[in-house]
Amino acid sequence: VESSWTKNNNEDVVGTITLVCNLESKELTERLRDLQRENRSSIISTVLVHLDHHNCLQVLIVRGESQRVKSMSDKLIGMKGVKHGQLTMSATGAELY
Amino acid sequence: VESSWTKNNNEDVVGTITLVCNLESKELTERLRDLQRENRSSIISTVLVHLDHHNCLQVLIVRGESQRVKSMSDKLIGMKGVKHGQLTMSATGAELY
Amino acid sequence: VESSWTKNNNEDVVGTITLVCNLESKELTERLRDLQRENRSSIISTVLVHLDHHNCLQVLIVRGESQRVKSMSDKLIGMKGVKHGQLTMSATGAELY
Amino acid sequence: VESSWTKNNNEDVVGTITLVCNLESKELTERLRDLQRENRSSIISTVLVHLDHHNCLQVLIVRGESQRVKSMSDKLIGMKGVKHGQLTMSATGAELY
Repeated sequence: VESSWTKNNNEDVVGTITLVCNLESKELTERLRDLQRENRSSIISTVLVHLDHHNCLQVLIVRGESQRVKSMSDKLIGMKGVKHGQLTMSATGAELY
Repeated sequence: VESSWTKNNNEDVVGTITLVCNLESKELTERLRDLQRENRSSIISTVLVHLDHHNCLQVLIVRGESQRVKSMSDKLIGMKGVKHGQLTMSATGAELY
Repeated sequence: VESSWTKNNNEDVVGTITLVCNLESKELTERLRDLQRENRSSIISTVLVHLDHHNCLQVLIVRGESQRVKSMSDKLIGMKGVKHGQLTMSATGAELY
Repeated sequence: VESSWTKNNNEDVVGTITLVCNLESKELTERLRDLQRENRSSIISTVLVHLDHHNCLQVLIVRGESQRVKSMSDKLIGMKGVKHGQLTMSATGAELY
């Protein structure tokens, strides 16, 4: 799932990747950590909220080239254990003014 | 703009409201503060990132009844000075398990 | 290390637990996740920022009884792999007004 | 109030500025916005939690030269309407490894 206000192919964007996932799996916990570590230049902060004993909400606040952000989002949302995921992007270029 | 994985009318949801807005307007700054204060029972946290001298990203992490969340989101996104806004919701009920 | 504006033994507080830690250890990653999951009623949100390939900043925004918050903080700061840790608390009671 | 693990005069640090403040004052709301906008290169994200109808918690996650961070913190904590404030800093240099 992807939602976007961007038009061009690879402009600078800012946005959020919202994930609902089951952190009981050690594998998912590690894969989320590794992917965020590798992409740390595009991730401003990640906010984590534990919803219940099984599930948590992770919100990645992202900034970077749209293609890099999309690629990272696709990998995250496709991970086993991620129940819901969604990318929101907005261009940060001249059209903002 | 609205994106949702929810099916029912008024179930419990968790999600994010992502806004790009111009905080130079005193009016917008105050209206954002007032609306968030009034709806604080549905807002877990708000994360703010200043993008440049004019614009900022505000990400509201929300939890509550879907109709209340939608109504709050509509008001926020419709405010003068909000350039982009998007709501992402996920049900938190039994279907998560 | 602990910093506090509270006077009484077990009043309601709000505050932050700031940790700098090395997330390369699978053990630490899991222990942090488990302790946060068990104490989720006292943790509003956790914000994570990856500092470099090895280290990350975790900021837990906490609310609850001061003794419970202190006990959680002691456990977190004492974990192997946590390089720095600090608790900041403020009472939320009548004295705020 | 200041808490720090840093030793040198002006090294790179990461940390948090935790504020409890009364956002009913329009003046404070605007001064907080202005100071954060001017120092946005040192502020990774600001997290806001409304505590009750009068008070909110603001947590600024900061990174930069220690003197700049301290100066910003002093200005924030000294603002009229800020009831409690505290700076936590950790060096991000070689000693972390």
